[in-house]
Amino acid sequence: MLPERTSEFQLIDAFRAAVAGFERIPLGIGDDTAIVEPLKGQGLLAADMLLEGVHFEFSTATPYQVGRKAMGVNLSDVAAMAGQPRFALVSLALPKDHPLNSEALPRELFSGLQSMAENFDTVIVGGDTNSWNGPLVINVAIVGESPSDPAVTRAGAKPGDWAFVTGRLGGSILGRHLDFLPRVKEASLLQQTVKLHSMIDISDGLIADLYHILEESHVGVCLDAESIPISAAARSMPDSTSALEHALGDGEDFELLFTVSADDGRRLTEKNPLPIELTRIGEIVTGDACLLRKADGSEVIVPRLGWNHAVEP
Amino acid sequence: MLPERTSEFQLIDAFRAAVAGFERIPLGIGDDTAIVEPLKGQGLLAADMLLEGVHFEFSTATPYQVGRKAMGVNLSDVAAMAGQPRFALVSLALPKDHPLNSEALPRELFSGLQSMAENFDTVIVGGDTNSWNGPLVINVAIVGESPSDPAVTRAGAKPGDWAFVTGRLGGSILGRHLDFLPRVKEASLLQQTVKLHSMIDISDGLIADLYHILEESHVGVCLDAESIPISAAARSMPDSTSALEHALGDGEDFELLFTVSADDGRRLTEKNPLPIELTRIGEIVTGDACLLRKADGSEVIVPRLGWNHAVEP
Repeated sequence: MLPERTSEFQLIDAFRAAVAGFERIPLGIGDDTAIVEPLKGQGLLAADMLLEGVHFEFSTATPYQVGRKAMGVNLSDVAAMAGQPRFALVSLALPKDHPLNSEALPRELFSGLQSMAENFDTVIVGGDTNSWNGPLVINVAIVGESPSDPAVTRAGAKPGDWAFVTGRLGGSILGRHLDFLPRVKEASLLQQTVKLHSMIDISDGLIADLYHILEESHVGVCLDAESIPISAAARSMPDSTSALEHALGDGEDFELLFTVSADDGRRLTEKNPLPIELTRIGEIVTGDACLLRKADGSEVIVPRLGWNHAVEP
Repeated sequence: MLPERTSEFQLIDAFRAAVAGFERIPLGIGDDTAIVEPLKGQGLLAADMLLEGVHFEFSTATPYQVGRKAMGVNLSDVAAMAGQPRFALVSLALPKDHPLNSEALPRELFSGLQSMAENFDTVIVGGDTNSWNGPLVINVAIVGESPSDPAVTRAGAKPGDWAFVTGRLGGSILGRHLDFLPRVKEASLLQQTVKLHSMIDISDGLIADLYHILEESHVGVCLDAESIPISAAARSMPDSTSALEHALGDGEDFELLFTVSADDGRRLTEKNPLPIELTRIGEIVTGDACLLRKADGSEVIVPRLGWNHAVEP
């Protein structure tokens, strides 16, 4: 009996079957490398590693959810560049002593990885499968294409730009971090509608990710506290932190944060081209500060680190 | 004090500095994805994950060597397709309690990864860095280009082909598995000289990898026992297994195994275009067997699994 090797081979067979016959992939899993057709436009490359006990726990997440998340965080990175994800490489270290039997764990992981990839026209073309006595490790590397040249980065925000976010923010720990949908299609729709000056996906938290844009673009921002879209989860968090603070600080919402010219901003507020909420949260200004304007008109500086209750309106 | 975060950031800064200013990379590390120029020709995609305690031990390998190996095994996969590696994504799970202090481990890993990548014109364009309480995990995903269309796979061996290997085989555990050079340049030279029908890199062992070619090409092979190039390491292995068996069975030599027409084979034996040894080891035949012809002219079937002393000449 070769339980873990058997499950590895079954997993590889499952990957191999899923990729067979796909367009643009002359050779999928089973050789030294996969062969894919030349990329259309610039390539977008990223990788994310999820570690059991650090990024997820099987006490609160199923293997299927872990698989979806591992793929989804990478697709979200490509979405943040307004790109189209195409090909994925999946590397696994499977725990030999997992309470799920040795077949169920890889099967459910694969099912989650595959379902998320398929949702966004992405094909798993290869990777590496191992067993060990450690916790589950899952790495996804993604190859995408940028339909625009140059791609949308964090560096293009200009004073006068309006800043927007998709969806509602905060409290993702209550579930959304496991069942989010990367905003690939929304980013593409936005790009067809307006000229995106800068964009990022919200993985570290609204303020933390906004600071990435500010620093790369050498600008500041003035946020309107009352317009931050606060999720129901943020309002129901069982702690003493306010819902607004959760919306500003919590990570893993995987919504889009972007800036456009004021003219384009007005078009987006007049007619939202997306099937999901789209909210103007503030305006890019000169300088390097992240200001939050409260309901009474007063403004506070929101620091990058050391977030605390002083900013509460 | 933020030791592990500090070392992570330092590591990211080191990667970022290394990639800055490179050709063909409009945007390296520091955004949601790297942006690279469109690939020339078909893309070659692969990933390999190395696990401390499974693929290496720090009692016998330095972090520098582990970094070089993690990059090298991927470059070897691209070499096996006669491709040119271009871009790499490196994902790390760094152990918090490593005996090397928290700065030295990532610095030396990076140094190894970077030196191997540079040797073969490959740029580390991104990845993911984490710390945890587990062993070191290092995943490299590679993006290469195939100058030929179609790329060289395992599936093109034809009866009458001559089979060749580069270098000498066996006993890599004594050191070579940590200091091999992937045969990227040799594969390219071969491709410029002859028409490669099939090729693979020897990672699982000569016989095991030869079987991959036999199965994908639907052919058999007849090997000449006396011509198998046996390394000095294979001859000095401190066990009762013969040097020939080590050369046939040991993994991680990362030499090239390939087949060409008999005409091209003759050209290669008359004038070796490579700066390293090149040896004709046998001939592709019809059927599906792996035969080994001994010095006395008798032939034995070498099984894929269950390698044993029965094949000893």
